[in-house]
Amino acid sequence: MNKPRPVHAPMAQFPVVDDCLQVGGIPLTRLAARIGRTPFYAYDRRLLQERVELLRGKLPAAVQLHYAVKANPMPALVSAMASLVDGLDVASLGELRIALDSGMDSREISFAGPGKQPVELAAAIAAGITLNMESEREMETIARLAAAQGIRPRVALRLNPDFELKSSGMKMGGGPKPFGVDAERAPDLLRRSGELELDFQGFHIYTGSQNLRAEAIVEAQNQSLELALRLAEQAPGPVRLLNIGGGFGIPYFPGDTPLDLEPIGANLERWLPTVHARQPQAKVVIELGRYLVGEAGIYVAEVIDRKVSRGQVFLITNGGLHHHLAASGNFGQVVRKNYPVVVGNRVLGQEREVVNVVGPLCTPLDVLAERMELARAEVGDLIVVFQSGAYGLSASPLGFLSHPSPAEVLV
Amino acid sequence: MNKPRPVHAPMAQFPVVDDCLQVGGIPLTRLAARIGRTPFYAYDRRLLQERVELLRGKLPAAVQLHYAVKANPMPALVSAMASLVDGLDVASLGELRIALDSGMDSREISFAGPGKQPVELAAAIAAGITLNMESEREMETIARLAAAQGIRPRVALRLNPDFELKSSGMKMGGGPKPFGVDAERAPDLLRRSGELELDFQGFHIYTGSQNLRAEAIVEAQNQSLELALRLAEQAPGPVRLLNIGGGFGIPYFPGDTPLDLEPIGANLERWLPTVHARQPQAKVVIELGRYLVGEAGIYVAEVIDRKVSRGQVFLITNGGLHHHLAASGNFGQVVRKNYPVVVGNRVLGQEREVVNVVGPLCTPLDVLAERMELARAEVGDLIVVFQSGAYGLSASPLGFLSHPSPAEVLV
Repeated sequence: MNKPRPVHAPMAQFPVVDDCLQVGGIPLTRLAARIGRTPFYAYDRRLLQERVELLRGKLPAAVQLHYAVKANPMPALVSAMASLVDGLDVASLGELRIALDSGMDSREISFAGPGKQPVELAAAIAAGITLNMESEREMETIARLAAAQGIRPRVALRLNPDFELKSSGMKMGGGPKPFGVDAERAPDLLRRSGELELDFQGFHIYTGSQNLRAEAIVEAQNQSLELALRLAEQAPGPVRLLNIGGGFGIPYFPGDTPLDLEPIGANLERWLPTVHARQPQAKVVIELGRYLVGEAGIYVAEVIDRKVSRGQVFLITNGGLHHHLAASGNFGQVVRKNYPVVVGNRVLGQEREVVNVVGPLCTPLDVLAERMELARAEVGDLIVVFQSGAYGLSASPLGFLSHPSPAEVLV
Repeated sequence: MNKPRPVHAPMAQFPVVDDCLQVGGIPLTRLAARIGRTPFYAYDRRLLQERVELLRGKLPAAVQLHYAVKANPMPALVSAMASLVDGLDVASLGELRIALDSGMDSREISFAGPGKQPVELAAAIAAGITLNMESEREMETIARLAAAQGIRPRVALRLNPDFELKSSGMKMGGGPKPFGVDAERAPDLLRRSGELELDFQGFHIYTGSQNLRAEAIVEAQNQSLELALRLAEQAPGPVRLLNIGGGFGIPYFPGDTPLDLEPIGANLERWLPTVHARQPQAKVVIELGRYLVGEAGIYVAEVIDRKVSRGQVFLITNGGLHHHLAASGNFGQVVRKNYPVVVGNRVLGQEREVVNVVGPLCTPLDVLAERMELARAEVGDLIVVFQSGAYGLSASPLGFLSHPSPAEVLV
């Protein structure tokens, strides 16, 4: 077989000066000294801004951008995002608090999640945000709780469509699903919602996530908009919100290539006149989490020991699975693949070698890189895992083996 | 195909009275009321005691039992275990603090882990516990840090054997590994350890975990004892500690059957005279985590919504992947299988149905039971996940989507 081995997409978003990675304009070694400990997550404020600018440039100006807080709920980062995007989407009461603290207008915050509890619904009603209704029961509960508060709550209907986002990391629509209301049952629910004291905003359709194929996203967006505009005719009032989800992926693994935004932007441009003609008040919203913040973040751990076992080199670091479950390959991955990893203070290095980078835990699952070519590293060197700005710290089992939690900085 | 479908092992450890599960002699509904919120983990003190009694009955009296704190570091549970077993094994400074707080004699505490940091090593030396040395570098660091404290530290050598525990959930020995020192390099390291001010205790060999086949465990124990006794002849002093690991599994999935302790006990009985003849001071230690506490614990979540989507019933609970990653199938499992699950307040139920039990998170990974037959459940009912006493709360991404953490009780 002469097929070239797949490689990681270049991680050019972080400059390298004197063979040392720069984060927020600061050499990584100096940043580590400033933080005072390892491991840590670092997010680059400039990259957040550049990513939003990229999207603003490629998507029609009338399309609104929302940040899904679940991707990274660090309060300082959410506040930074709040100043860049048009709205925030939350998935719990905890995320709602962070979103409100960010200063985002509550009318531009929405709340989705299949198991919202009465205390969460009541808080969301009091905050004046938009609730994405996920079932008939939830709609009735919202109406009851809002009546008790004397508030007419803003609601949208989350639909479980009868199609899916093809070749997605995760599929969230099509077939039997716990998310939203089956599209075919929506007309009944819309009729009932008109009988309740609800301020109907529109629809939320989320078909999948982490997709690198523009044509699959275009197809899902077409189907989502068709479905929403068809159901809009049965809505109890004019539609003001069409949240057609996101699903924009980022390249994690060897062979992954960045998503092409051009066809997505062009397709949305074609849709806008139709949307405007049929629902003049409707805003089209794209909801993105990972795509906005994932590439702006790195995870950094320090080499504690370097050992050779039966011919293989192991770099043992003070960070691992407990801090970064996804990079260890244990979060929704069937086959473990390496995230892009470098030695941050010797990016190219003079000497190269194939190594395993592992964490301090007593489990063979605790792997950050498996048989990967890196600059030769010694104790004290800094291992960097790229593409770690989303679903990193907050999606990891921090208490596993009772090690300290990593620091988290926005620079 | 007429092959009967595999089923879960019976979960007879928790009695059922009036169709309601009893935990620590308390009906589950009353326990939930006493805790004042759901979800929660509950561990049954009586079951911890019975499990230790079972092991004491089946294994030779001279074999010592250690509890590996990593399986469940809840302080009250570790204190309870400390009064039942002969020693505790820790894997971090956090676990060491919990172990010391439990009142266990520090000489019966040992510390293993491939990436121990200087601050952890220094604390362990000050505490007077036994350090399992994982590399040449670590040995030198221990000697240096201990000299600075004026202490002769208790050390054991962790070996990476040249064999493995067959058909294990996780293999931790054999081949190139980050754990311990390759057996073939042990003689050099033992020689060097004699030149340092170290109080040499013996050996630690951990070959794998979660094994349900007694013959595989017997074989690994035979190889471990042979290896340790062979290397003991090159030790710098008499061997006092032979920690041959554990690896005893518990039945999680359909088709799993409980481990048969008889052959393991009989085999250890045969070994003891040989061990005593060759190393008169050596204690044989079995180190168990999951086997001691896993079956004594349950995870309990409350049904928040019940919905039908395209012919399938979904019970949506307030607990899920963020509290119990392993039960969701996302922790080291290649193919997702159901843990044993019941509706705790209607164990048998009058009506049965096939359902999906999911959590409140906006991800298709958030599943507690997939197409499982349960009693028909309604909002407010309590879903119980058995076999949740080990690697449950502490091994889960509690911050994922910023929901509250579950309560944890020992009853």
